This record gives sequence, C-alpha cells and structure tokens, in this order.
Amino acid sequence: MKNKKIAIVAVSGGLDSCVTAAIANNKYDLALAHINYGQRTQERELKAFNDIADFYNAKKRIIIDFNHLAKIGGSSLTDKSIKINDADLESKEIPSSYVPFRNANILTACVSWAEVIGAEAVFIGAVFEDSSGYPDCRPDFFSAFNSVIDLGTKPETKIRIETPIIHMNKDEIIQKGNELNAPLHLTWSCYQSEDEACGVCDSCALRLRGFQKLGIEDPIPYKIRPKY
Amino acid sequence: MKNKKIAIVAVSGGLDSCVTAAIANNKYDLALAHINYGQRTQERELKAFNDIADFYNAKKRIIIDFNHLAKIGGSSLTDKSIKINDADLESKEIPSSYVPFRNANILTACVSWAEVIGAEAVFIGAVFEDSSGYPDCRPDFFSAFNSVIDLGTKPETKIRIETPIIHMNKDEIIQKGNELNAPLHLTWSCYQSEDEACGVCDSCALRLRGFQKLGIEDPIPYKIRPKY
Repeated sequence: MKNKKIAIVAVSGGLDSCVTAAIANNKYDLALAHINYGQRTQERELKAFNDIADFYNAKKRIIIDFNHLAKIGGSSLTDKSIKINDADLESKEIPSSYVPFRNANILTACVSWAEVIGAEAVFIGAVFEDSSGYPDCRPDFFSAFNSVIDLGTKPETKIRIETPIIHMNKDEIIQKGNELNAPLHLTWSCYQSEDEACGVCDSCALRLRGFQKLGIEDPIPYKIRPKY
Repeated sequence: MKNKKIAIVAVSGGLDSCVTAAIANNKYDLALAHINYGQRTQERELKAFNDIADFYNAKKRIIIDFNHLAKIGGSSLTDKSIKINDADLESKEIPSSYVPFRNANILTACVSWAEVIGAEAVFIGAVFEDSSGYPDCRPDFFSAFNSVIDLGTKPETKIRIETPIIHMNKDEIIQKGNELNAPLHLTWSCYQSEDEACGVCDSCALRLRGFQKLGIEDPIPYKIRPKY
C-alpha cells in the first residue's frame, strides 16, 4: 500500500474542526495539532481534541501552548474581566470573543510543524459565511497567508492552507459531518462552560441553530437549549 | 508633551535586534518582545534582552514562550542531536540553524500584542543582504506579511512590519548602532555558548567579520576570535 501524504489539521475540538478533520481524512494521513491559548474552556477542549484524535487513530499529535495569547489578552475568551456576551447572531460587529490575530498564530505554528514532518497541507476549519465576523476567517486572509508560506519557507517546501468548509453554513457543516461519520458527539463548542454547554454564547447559538435547521438533536449536553 | 506612538520591537538580544531597537527608539515609545523558543542559548539571550530593555527603560515588555518550536525541532538551534556547523560564510545553502518559519511565528505573536496595545508598527531586525540565507528574511516575505495583517485584523487596526536594517551589511549595522549609541556591549549573538561566545558558529563569524571590517574591537567576550 502506498503511503498517503500527510496533512496537518488544526483541531480545536469544536464542530467545525472535527468536520474539517473528517474531510482531510478522506485523502491524507492526519497529523493533528491543538492549541491551548488560555481560553476559559481549555481543559474541555483538550479532552475533545484527544477524543477526536483517538477516533481517527492519529499517530502524530502536537499540543501547542500559546500562553502569550492569554498574557496579551484583549478577548473575552482569554481575559475573565471581559464579559462573554450572549449571542447576537444578527450583529455585524466583531464580538468580544475575537482573539487578536489568532488564526495567524495557529497557522504559523502548524506551518513550522508541516515543514519539519513533510506535510503538504494545513487544514483549518475557518468559516466565513456563517461566522461571527472575525477578520481572520476571510478567504482573502488565507490566500495572502499562502503567499507568506511560499516566500518564508525553504524553496523545496510546498505547503498549502486548506479551508474546506469556509463557504458552508453551520447546517451544511453538520450535514457534511454526518455524511462522513464525523464524531460530532465528541466535540465541544461552548465558550464558557466545561460540563454542560451554556446554550447562550455565540458559539452555542450558532451550533444549536444549525442542528435546529436540520431538525436533528445536537448530541452534546446543554444547560438550556433555546430556539434560535 | 504629546504621547509618542508605540512600536513593538522583537528583541532576541543579538546585535541586529539591538540596533533595530535603537532605530525605533528615535521615533516611538518602545514595547519590547522576546521569544524563548527552546534555543540552546535561551538563558543568555533572555539576559541580553532584559539588559537592552533596561537600557532603553522600556515599560512594556513581554516574554513569549514558544515551546512548540523546540517540540517541532528540525533545527540545530533547538535540537541538540543536530550539530551546529562551523561558519561557512560563502555557502548559499540554508544552514542547519534555520528554525522552520520562525520569523512568521515571531511576527504573528507581535501583531497580536500590537493590536491589543495599539502599537502601529512591529520592528524586526531581519537582515537579507548579509544573511545566512534564511527564507523568512526576504523583503518579499515581509511585504506579503503586511497583506496578511491588513486582512486578518480588525478594520480599524493599522500595523506595519518595519525592517529598517534589511539591506545593511553587518558592518553597516554596527556603524549605525554606534551612531545611535546602541548598547552593543549588552548583546549576545552566539548560537552555542552562554559564557563566552564561541567565535566559530555562523552568528559569531558574521558578527566578528563586521567588527573586523570596521577595525573596531567587538566589546563582548570570545573564546577565540578568528580572522574572517
């Protein structure tokens, strides 16, 4: 059997990155990267990452500690003095949960790893269409990042950023995950709770709305399940 | 007195970043960032950083721990099983000291900090002309990185990467440092020793050659001072 090519997938432990891993798994051997960045639900997300990595039997895994993002602050995810707002899915403003330039930090670390292990792609589960308005989820951002990789790595290094779900809505992502038998029951999305999802933060709201559109029950536990 | 604008300078503790800080200091209030990435001379470089930051009386400082670059390996600077080669200043090959995509990792962390503290520039002491051939020191790399910043941060955020010494030779950098009274005696460049510089690694060789061209004594201690 010919060895498959390797792709790194940045897996937060949430729904989007889980489905992204399922997509990458169709074509590549998976090398999974997880970032701790001092976010409130760090322990729960790490558990979700390990559960998903076990599910896919990923031999190559790396846990990256980005303590600087917590030191730097500026986000309700990493600074407990900033309140996590209840969801406002119609708002066009950048929410307080925005972690400054987070995706660029994640991608640079993954590209360093990719260059060493010879991976040819770095998958990230960024979502633009149905996103919360984070600037580092825009398709143009990832195109520009590919130029930075070409210019900033060895001439023989060829690594592309892949964003397979960037134009999907949450319900399309869930549907794709179900088609690919992705372990959605192992994922964690809530920004503020670690035992049962709160059901009211942006991340819970987007997720619940997606399942509700499809008429499917979200398989993870919630404190409350508002109708969105 | 009007408040000066803030610039972040990535200060490794070496000659190039010290002179870069001296240049930034002419126009900005300095916020200094230092990266530990598991390099062999980490403690000595951190001391040099703090000495330089004290010299400039920098109130804003951040020490960023990039343990992942050591975990990832692939460089003689972070992996002790890879030998640090003696200098070959004529070689056009990328040396074993190349840390994969290191400058991109440094810049992304600095940009996150810049967005939170409202800095308008991130200075980095990258050198292209007289460099060791690292791909992430190319001017085009930094131009592409500026596009990534524009696209990946909030619309109101305006941050530029500044590389003021990128086209200078080592002797020109030393001369510029002396003109600006930069504390070159506090810097540390050696890749492998922490008490006295080895005098034979790429970094020592480039530095010694620069001082020798100018007919000036390098103010730091060396085990040996070959003629380059």
